[in-house]
Amino acid sequence: MDFETYFQGELANVREEGRYRIFTEIERHCGRFPHATRYVDETTHPITVWCSNDYLGMGQHPLVLDAMHAVLDECGAGAGGTRNISGTNHHHVVLEHELADLHGKEAALLFTSGYVSNWAGLGTLAAKIPGCVVFSDALNHASMIEGIRHSRAKCHIWRHNDAAHLDELLSQYGPDVPKLVAFESVYSMDGDIAPIAEILDVCEAHGAMSYIDEVHAVGLYGPRGGGVAEREGLMDRITVIEGTLGKAFGVMGGYIAASESLCDFVRTFSSGFIFTTALPPALAAGAAASIRHLKGSEMERARHKERVATVRRRLDAMGIPHLPNPSHIIPVMVGDARKCKRISDWLMDNHGIYVQPINYPTVPRGTERLRITPSPVHSDGDIDRLIDALSDIWSQCELARRSAAA
Amino acid sequence: MDFETYFQGELANVREEGRYRIFTEIERHCGRFPHATRYVDETTHPITVWCSNDYLGMGQHPLVLDAMHAVLDECGAGAGGTRNISGTNHHHVVLEHELADLHGKEAALLFTSGYVSNWAGLGTLAAKIPGCVVFSDALNHASMIEGIRHSRAKCHIWRHNDAAHLDELLSQYGPDVPKLVAFESVYSMDGDIAPIAEILDVCEAHGAMSYIDEVHAVGLYGPRGGGVAEREGLMDRITVIEGTLGKAFGVMGGYIAASESLCDFVRTFSSGFIFTTALPPALAAGAAASIRHLKGSEMERARHKERVATVRRRLDAMGIPHLPNPSHIIPVMVGDARKCKRISDWLMDNHGIYVQPINYPTVPRGTERLRITPSPVHSDGDIDRLIDALSDIWSQCELARRSAAA
Repeated sequence: MDFETYFQGELANVREEGRYRIFTEIERHCGRFPHATRYVDETTHPITVWCSNDYLGMGQHPLVLDAMHAVLDECGAGAGGTRNISGTNHHHVVLEHELADLHGKEAALLFTSGYVSNWAGLGTLAAKIPGCVVFSDALNHASMIEGIRHSRAKCHIWRHNDAAHLDELLSQYGPDVPKLVAFESVYSMDGDIAPIAEILDVCEAHGAMSYIDEVHAVGLYGPRGGGVAEREGLMDRITVIEGTLGKAFGVMGGYIAASESLCDFVRTFSSGFIFTTALPPALAAGAAASIRHLKGSEMERARHKERVATVRRRLDAMGIPHLPNPSHIIPVMVGDARKCKRISDWLMDNHGIYVQPINYPTVPRGTERLRITPSPVHSDGDIDRLIDALSDIWSQCELARRSAAA
Repeated sequence: MDFETYFQGELANVREEGRYRIFTEIERHCGRFPHATRYVDETTHPITVWCSNDYLGMGQHPLVLDAMHAVLDECGAGAGGTRNISGTNHHHVVLEHELADLHGKEAALLFTSGYVSNWAGLGTLAAKIPGCVVFSDALNHASMIEGIRHSRAKCHIWRHNDAAHLDELLSQYGPDVPKLVAFESVYSMDGDIAPIAEILDVCEAHGAMSYIDEVHAVGLYGPRGGGVAEREGLMDRITVIEGTLGKAFGVMGGYIAASESLCDFVRTFSSGFIFTTALPPALAAGAAASIRHLKGSEMERARHKERVATVRRRLDAMGIPHLPNPSHIIPVMVGDARKCKRISDWLMDNHGIYVQPINYPTVPRGTERLRITPSPVHSDGDIDRLIDALSDIWSQCELARRSAAA
């Protein structure tokens, strides 16, 4: 087989479908987020980033940076090994305590990313618990799907956010069958939020474990940034809370928080946890500083909410259609892969506004969108420029508007 | 099902088998590697680390730290998104060029870890190439095994380092069947090195793709640190070279280097690449500085070889049995999980010498060992103390010695 020809052919197909990804090369400027520099061949251009998941701008917070600089000088660059072989640094242990405390759980377990924490966490539980059956929300993230798939456990997909359907599926199994229910709190592409209490009622009625992915919520919701489950007073009813250090906390890494035994079980049996170099101590220290700060500071969350509401209001005033949802994510719907990409390119080239087009397979075909994520560090001027530019392109392309009253 | 009781029962079994892992909590001291502090409850103790995979001490190299400090201040803590959604930083692009150049390949693709690069790289190739059959060395790393397993592709295991057996297995398939041969250069637990040229001869005879894991070799072997394949002039015959930034390069992250089309194919179709937050720019910059330095500096590699040879000679003089191999890894064989752990504990408690016991499932039962990794930053005094302590415990436990002549 001629592999090169095969690869090129497959890539040509992707290009033809208009969903070939060209990564935008940028350099974010610490202290000046959301402002950044875009690299195009040999030239650079100033841009404003409107699609980052550093939701609160914590990636440039002095407390985070100070902690990272200090630990870089104290402990060096990398961890130097897996957690088991010389790679467990004091700063990992401190961070795991910080995370357990954040979620009111006995323990937490760090992974190199949120992706790996879902893949390894769900994968290990579903594979190792004999006869475990998994019940997965239809819109769960790729990392959860891959973890479940990897486990080879039997899996049922329940209709998105439909607790009644979940109940129906769970009812097929007797009390002796181990059941694991996996879902998210904030779904990142639509920005909708799960009916967590209803889902937990169903889980409890069937004696199922509950596993919630709060990666788009930790730091952002709840009085201490514990996520939507904290806001709703539900953390103690959830078996496993999974989160990330790479979005609102501004650094990198993932984790699960749960009982001592469950974390120890995953720690002991998860290949994706044990056979990988631990996070650099400086990242652990930066993340711990970020979490600690957001436990005590409401300012960032308040300003974040206000900025999101302002952008929504301004979009409404211009009749630019966006998916209504109760979260901080603003999906401006386009519904066509090529058009979505063209608008994104035009915003970038003409206004230095960076909003990545979101196409299949990240979202279903026909629901292509611009996913806007306002943050506390976007100024009024930034918002003005975004709204003006969107309004301009909406007119130019004769895109449908909603009446301001709708 | 009572999940807590189940977890506790499984953990009790692991404890009974003597293979329950207790992580050693340490703090490495930048500028004073391999010296570190061990944390036990509320107390701290000075130790010397003899089991790190920061093989060259690059994790404390001023060039690496300077680059990381600078980019932390320039770009902030995290990347702020996936590679596709605002997370591609200029420093990722620079690092990918550095890696492609290191291996003489058209392109390179960064992952969050070596584990993920194997899992996602092999997993994507084996799953997406229609009818692909994988041929995997019997001692391949967990990350490769999980990637192949995840792909659901048909897989044959060939006897470790046995090119003739590989040939036999490949011969069952006609020229039209796509074949992928996966192996490592340096096997990390035994320290043996694959007969790469022979394996490539076989691959080429059957038109198979070759995928080599050089994580325990990059930075350490070859005139520019390109790995064993560079040393042996074989890089251009290998389809995919996979490596890590977390061992000899001293930071964190993984990668594949290959043709432009192959990297683009994996970039486009790999869930584990696309749906995860990118590495922090500061890590990318630190890794690039490390690679750049080791491309031009032979000093670290020469000193590393000398230190390894010295430790081996001293062990031989004392008759302490270690697995002979042509690499930098010195496995001191114990062959019993409990004994291995006891020796390790004794070395730590009485001499502040940290050598992690390596037990099942990392190595087969009955081959439990202390895996010693000397580095350029271990002094003569450090070596004296290690040898004296080992000799002492060997006498105390009446462990078998080899005659010095053997």
